[in-house]
Amino acid sequence: MPRRHMILAAFFFNPQGDHRLSWRHPRAPDREFLDLDYYRRLVEAAECAKLDTIFIADHLGVWDTHGSGLAHYANPRLEPLSLVSALSAVTRNIGFMVTASSSYTEPFNTARMFASMDHISKGRVAWNVVTSALEEEAANFGRDSNIEHAVRYERAAEFLDVAKALWDSWEDDALVIAKETGLFANRERVHYLNHQGKHFKVKGPLNVPRPPQGHPVIVQAGSSDAGKNLAAAHADVHFAVIRSEAEGLTYRTDIDNRLAKFGRAPESLKLLPGILPIVGASASEAQEKQEYLETLMLDEVAVDLLSSWAGRDLSLYPLDGPIPDLPEEGTFNGWRTWLALVKDDANKGLSIRQLARKIANTGSVPLVVGTPSQVADQLEAWFVSGAADGYNLMFPLLPEDWMNFMQTVVPELQRRGLFRTEYEPGTLRDRLGLQRPQNAFSATRAACRSHDA
Amino acid sequence: MPRRHMILAAFFFNPQGDHRLSWRHPRAPDREFLDLDYYRRLVEAAECAKLDTIFIADHLGVWDTHGSGLAHYANPRLEPLSLVSALSAVTRNIGFMVTASSSYTEPFNTARMFASMDHISKGRVAWNVVTSALEEEAANFGRDSNIEHAVRYERAAEFLDVAKALWDSWEDDALVIAKETGLFANRERVHYLNHQGKHFKVKGPLNVPRPPQGHPVIVQAGSSDAGKNLAAAHADVHFAVIRSEAEGLTYRTDIDNRLAKFGRAPESLKLLPGILPIVGASASEAQEKQEYLETLMLDEVAVDLLSSWAGRDLSLYPLDGPIPDLPEEGTFNGWRTWLALVKDDANKGLSIRQLARKIANTGSVPLVVGTPSQVADQLEAWFVSGAADGYNLMFPLLPEDWMNFMQTVVPELQRRGLFRTEYEPGTLRDRLGLQRPQNAFSATRAACRSHDA
Repeated sequence: MPRRHMILAAFFFNPQGDHRLSWRHPRAPDREFLDLDYYRRLVEAAECAKLDTIFIADHLGVWDTHGSGLAHYANPRLEPLSLVSALSAVTRNIGFMVTASSSYTEPFNTARMFASMDHISKGRVAWNVVTSALEEEAANFGRDSNIEHAVRYERAAEFLDVAKALWDSWEDDALVIAKETGLFANRERVHYLNHQGKHFKVKGPLNVPRPPQGHPVIVQAGSSDAGKNLAAAHADVHFAVIRSEAEGLTYRTDIDNRLAKFGRAPESLKLLPGILPIVGASASEAQEKQEYLETLMLDEVAVDLLSSWAGRDLSLYPLDGPIPDLPEEGTFNGWRTWLALVKDDANKGLSIRQLARKIANTGSVPLVVGTPSQVADQLEAWFVSGAADGYNLMFPLLPEDWMNFMQTVVPELQRRGLFRTEYEPGTLRDRLGLQRPQNAFSATRAACRSHDA
Repeated sequence: MPRRHMILAAFFFNPQGDHRLSWRHPRAPDREFLDLDYYRRLVEAAECAKLDTIFIADHLGVWDTHGSGLAHYANPRLEPLSLVSALSAVTRNIGFMVTASSSYTEPFNTARMFASMDHISKGRVAWNVVTSALEEEAANFGRDSNIEHAVRYERAAEFLDVAKALWDSWEDDALVIAKETGLFANRERVHYLNHQGKHFKVKGPLNVPRPPQGHPVIVQAGSSDAGKNLAAAHADVHFAVIRSEAEGLTYRTDIDNRLAKFGRAPESLKLLPGILPIVGASASEAQEKQEYLETLMLDEVAVDLLSSWAGRDLSLYPLDGPIPDLPEEGTFNGWRTWLALVKDDANKGLSIRQLARKIANTGSVPLVVGTPSQVADQLEAWFVSGAADGYNLMFPLLPEDWMNFMQTVVPELQRRGLFRTEYEPGTLRDRLGLQRPQNAFSATRAACRSHDA
């Protein structure tokens, strides 16, 4: 499919915005972050702007690794699958990229939930597959500590194999519903998996017919070597941390090489870097917004967050001193993507406090600060050069920055012909320019028939 | 709270209706059983009739134990939690009793999903806790066979202990959201569980604030001895199989005795027998409806269904011969409630074919066949005598029988003053006459304070 316009996903993890202490902003939501209507308004605005999708990140626990999280961080939130099911009932076109863990759920349950959501939304659902790196998450699922990094990714790959086989277990023509003869399904088109692997034993079939999209869109977000290989093997969309156009082009080449090893074409995987847009009517207004957000940060939270990313409790060191030696990335059992970013910055000679505030205020992805036109310039540049297929938009403050982007930057992108002005018909997969996957069982039968002929 | 009117729940397992082959009916849905709009119309009609709740049963697999299920039974369906989340977004008052398994999910995930759905629906969610007795379900979760009956119930009880503690882990006043000082939560009001039991190790806290209902309403549906004890220990609503008013009164006394052992009052557990209403404008029309439904049954499916309930493959015996010896109920590892019903009937001298058709056509619960007034008479009698607090209405054919009941029987019950004509304000728990549970952590602190004083 031609690459006509960029893909835009409106992201949130904290429902108050992606600045880590955005909940303190005077215009941040108070208790309404627990109300469906709060999210309905966000999603309706994104749908009016013709965005491809929203994107909800998630953790399976509170963040309190170093002690300040419980009191000062906006830990509690709605569970994303139930939230997205509800939102799909009050929207018609926008997609939903939603996070679920392959480490702490069962393939039958998760495959079934996404299949069902894909029917309910008429083909608008994507699964962001995460492996859950927090110690706090492991402790909610019977464990003393996190599962080892390589095992998490090995399990994720087998989990996706099983999930895809379950989605295929009812072929597209399996339902017959012949009321006269009493034949509900053609049992030659319904398949037991009898999967028996290292991590899972699943008989199948699923008890939900094949999803409208064949498979819900698969999103993968980890930039470790194992993460990129999982994306190349299984994903349709890769959410990446990319800090310059040149880095994006290098990253794209790396991904394309990995895709080739799995016999996949570059266009079968869409690369969505995260960006944090701070948009103002003037460049100085945007700058002031950013500076105000920084006043919301608390040193204690900033240092604890840096400690989480760095895999070492940095509150034990002088805050204005240098960053001590940090774990080796290749053997680190936490978020390797984030550790790499921290080490990059540690090499630039920042103090603990400086780096902590930088990380806590801006997160992991590049800030794009300016007028709607300036922000559109940067989005255009990366898209046109091929460094990005689109963007995961991580707004510092909700709902204000989300609404403002829809009203100011999206129209500018539309004027430039870089973004749709009407939804095309079809599923999320269709709109993203992704093919509907062939059913593996149908494909096997077709191959056997051609062999017999 | 006074027992002013009966509780009415509109049930489905098969979205085509509870007659096992209702999908064959000319007016049954075709592929629209996969569309949200199909369910939306059902629920809107129930909400217009002021029903307390809908009730969705569930299995974690297809039923194909004896070979006819895959081809002839309407196995595929939408996943109920995602369906209910979507439906809660397009309704305002009706409740949602929804099934999830304590055997094949994790307490953190399930407690979180229900907490989130309770926020999204503003306090309208109930969890029907099931232990999953089908071999087909076990085989989708890494097992060669079903978990032993006693272990399933032991796990369910611990699962509920953990779930309730997770719901309590944020006390009602834990959220502070003091933007000026940066205090999001009062960490003295947020609790680690550090639960370590036979089946689960869960640190907590949950990452969802306490649900509006305190705890979502807990429903339990198994009538085995273990099932009734679980209900007495943990449930707010018990869905029972009761075949006469006298049996209902005996059942109620048994339940009340069990409740007393847990220090609970009778009114803290609502008893909802299932009934299968077949309503016609005249008694003969209702009778014709029933007879037509029976023509839809296939012998093969009927015998396979009886075999599933009986725990023995009865297709190996002469169909017109007697029922052979069946497993002992006390050691049976399947649905003990259903086995007991089968044995009851086997003692009446029915042949395999006769019993198979009886079970397959009418299911487990009593048929109530007649005009709206006749059906209302029976509902009134059991309610007034105390044999039932209300009913789980299992309609043979959807959407027709559901819609018809709402339009004919409910108004009759309303005329008699037995059912509400407007929704009272409040949560599902309020409407059912159930108290909001005290938070266990708050209660402990209050007890310590009074001890100190």
